Amino acid sequence: MIEKQKLKPISGFPEWLPEVRMVEQAWIDRIRAVFESYGFAPIETRSVEPVEVLLKQGDTDKEIYALRRLMEEEGSAAEADYALHYDLTVPMARYVAAHLNDLTFPFKRYQIQRAWRGERPQEGRFREFTQCDIDVVDTRDIPLHFDAEMPTIVYEVMQALDVGPTVTRINNRKVLEGFYRGLGVEQAHEVIRIVDKQDKIGAAGVSKMLTDELLLDEGTIAKVLELAEITGTKADVVERVRALGVSGELLEEGLDELHFVMKALEGYPEGAFLADLSVARGLAYYTGTVYEVKFADDPAFPTICGGGRYENLVGSMLNKHLPGIGISIGLTRIFSKLVKDGKIAPTRKTPTEVMVCHLPGASYEEVNAVAVQLRRRGIKTEQFHEARKLKQQLAYAANKGIPHVWFPAVGEDGRHEVKNLETGEQADGDPATWTP
Amino acid sequence: MIEKQKLKPISGFPEWLPEVRMVEQAWIDRIRAVFESYGFAPIETRSVEPVEVLLKQGDTDKEIYALRRLMEEEGSAAEADYALHYDLTVPMARYVAAHLNDLTFPFKRYQIQRAWRGERPQEGRFREFTQCDIDVVDTRDIPLHFDAEMPTIVYEVMQALDVGPTVTRINNRKVLEGFYRGLGVEQAHEVIRIVDKQDKIGAAGVSKMLTDELLLDEGTIAKVLELAEITGTKADVVERVRALGVSGELLEEGLDELHFVMKALEGYPEGAFLADLSVARGLAYYTGTVYEVKFADDPAFPTICGGGRYENLVGSMLNKHLPGIGISIGLTRIFSKLVKDGKIAPTRKTPTEVMVCHLPGASYEEVNAVAVQLRRRGIKTEQFHEARKLKQQLAYAANKGIPHVWFPAVGEDGRHEVKNLETGEQADGDPATWTP
Repeated sequence: MIEKQKLKPISGFPEWLPEVRMVEQAWIDRIRAVFESYGFAPIETRSVEPVEVLLKQGDTDKEIYALRRLMEEEGSAAEADYALHYDLTVPMARYVAAHLNDLTFPFKRYQIQRAWRGERPQEGRFREFTQCDIDVVDTRDIPLHFDAEMPTIVYEVMQALDVGPTVTRINNRKVLEGFYRGLGVEQAHEVIRIVDKQDKIGAAGVSKMLTDELLLDEGTIAKVLELAEITGTKADVVERVRALGVSGELLEEGLDELHFVMKALEGYPEGAFLADLSVARGLAYYTGTVYEVKFADDPAFPTICGGGRYENLVGSMLNKHLPGIGISIGLTRIFSKLVKDGKIAPTRKTPTEVMVCHLPGASYEEVNAVAVQLRRRGIKTEQFHEARKLKQQLAYAANKGIPHVWFPAVGEDGRHEVKNLETGEQADGDPATWTP
Repeated sequence: MIEKQKLKPISGFPEWLPEVRMVEQAWIDRIRAVFESYGFAPIETRSVEPVEVLLKQGDTDKEIYALRRLMEEEGSAAEADYALHYDLTVPMARYVAAHLNDLTFPFKRYQIQRAWRGERPQEGRFREFTQCDIDVVDTRDIPLHFDAEMPTIVYEVMQALDVGPTVTRINNRKVLEGFYRGLGVEQAHEVIRIVDKQDKIGAAGVSKMLTDELLLDEGTIAKVLELAEITGTKADVVERVRALGVSGELLEEGLDELHFVMKALEGYPEGAFLADLSVARGLAYYTGTVYEVKFADDPAFPTICGGGRYENLVGSMLNKHLPGIGISIGLTRIFSKLVKDGKIAPTRKTPTEVMVCHLPGASYEEVNAVAVQLRRRGIKTEQFHEARKLKQQLAYAANKGIPHVWFPAVGEDGRHEVKNLETGEQADGDPATWTP
């Protein structure tokens, strides 16, 4: 016997009952279908990476789970160098670098896999979770086509999952960096880092940090905050940025890109996509378009999907030019919220479409023959596993949410009957032709 | 830039190119379909378990990967108690024990998930691998129906995957234990442990160990070895055991069970199932029927699938009677062998069925509109991402193995054309009706 404590759920490591997992599995199938409908190919990467590869990407050291052999043998400390990946972007970058000569470019892959972070569990934050990522990596410049395609793919996924209204906020790092440079600020990346905190500390907090840490003057700070206030659902949002009177080559490049993306999204429902000049995305590696998706009716809930363009993430591993763009859907975050909110209402505990009863007097072979015949015709068929009282067999089917039960012909009587447990209707059934 | 060394494959952690992963993904879909056709419900368990739960099941301590936070904070050593699971049976048992009141019994689940073992990689042995398991756990005695059903499910999976001929060896621990008891041997489990080594050390080695370690006499050893020599494809194989003249209640119970299972399998092709009285399965928790599946034409290759009945594995966690039976398919072991043997011949690097070309003079919107229309009709459609030379666009499609390319109507000309890249045929196409 094991301590009760050891059998309990581990905080941050979610686990579902079969009826809920069936819904999550259906979600994953739908996400795959959308990703594949755009021609993205599946890969999986190993769960571990060398610690060095994971650490190169920023201050994630506290969140990483390293491996160690429970009974380490003398001189076999090699595992100490490996750790579980904390996202799917860095492993994808390493995969591309490792398999460079075997891939066809532009490389378009999707990846639906678990990742691990040793952070404190809280709403929407887990220590083990599933991400659904799509990325494009090329050996030459990536056309803006993909900047526009990424958010539409995510939009279609959200529609397919029926998660309720979402809003995708779009910005461009070149606009931010170019704008700050145009204001004469050298430490543009530092400004991005501080502006990214506006959600948490407000405009006043940002203003204070820009004063204290970067010693920016009032006029400059006012412009930085003005830029961050601009939002718009149409491509002409870029004119409002231009109206702030700042100029520069990088800024113009960024505004053209933002214009292209917002223009391409104009056919979609109003409010689904929003240019938002305050969006920065924390990660250091983004260099152009950035995305951030939230539930429209719950803006306080963490970002459910994020991504953007990264010119140097992959290439930096090899000292080559390998730009990329990608977006990552936080499946566990989204799904667990909907479960918690009671919006996932599972009714069936099994995929079984019909259960073949073991009637009194029937032989095992008779029951089995019907089950085999139905199953060969592609019908998910469970054979009741022993000759128990019919009441008990029906109770089992009802408890599992099995929609139909089959009463096989016994002996001389060649008549089969099928009962629909939802409607209570019972009718003759032919195992050679019946469909659920 | 990262050391070249750090980008290399890690021994024992397999990873596939997209075209190979597409085949593996199709395999998993087929395995799921077979499992679901028998009414098994999907679950996933978290990847980690308390070390204590994993260690309870035998001498696996050397193979376990424990977790540690890379930057352990003061007083947060909790992760040290968790380790990655090394199979899916023990986590399933813990899951049932933890969710006992929320499950409907008999609980029939399948689970397709990764597991990890810190062992030295060698042929067919990996440190990270995917297992495909089905198990039944009940709160009352499990009927023999499931003992017969398990190997037929695996047989259907192997057929669906087209891996070549396999042979499923079947035995029953009660027969072994009952037979040894009938010979007057007290330490029946020790005999099982030694007989299990016959594959590696031969009959002479087994004989020597039985003499040296258990001090069995020659006559007893002769009977033990005679039993281990019995094999048969029909249910009457049990008569050959009886002919050895040993008797006892447990032995008879085991023989009746073995008879039921072999009888139920008689409709399948000769040689697919074999009663083999030498099969013991190493794991301590098996108590009745046991299975071991191998490639028929490569008996030296490790077992590709194994399982059996365990009366006490789940219940022992709670001090309850919760018998179970299950079988586990070593997906990574099977798949990687077929890859290595050149039996997986992938031709496509993408799921894309048709690529819409960006013809000179076409607007982005014209190209996009065709892609959207095809995609909405359920066709996997890639839009070529920029207006490059047609030759380059076709080379991309050919390199990725995309079977069709689409030439959209441009301007006044309302005629679309589609080219089949395999046959070279080109014909008019209507995006409203065309199918690949």
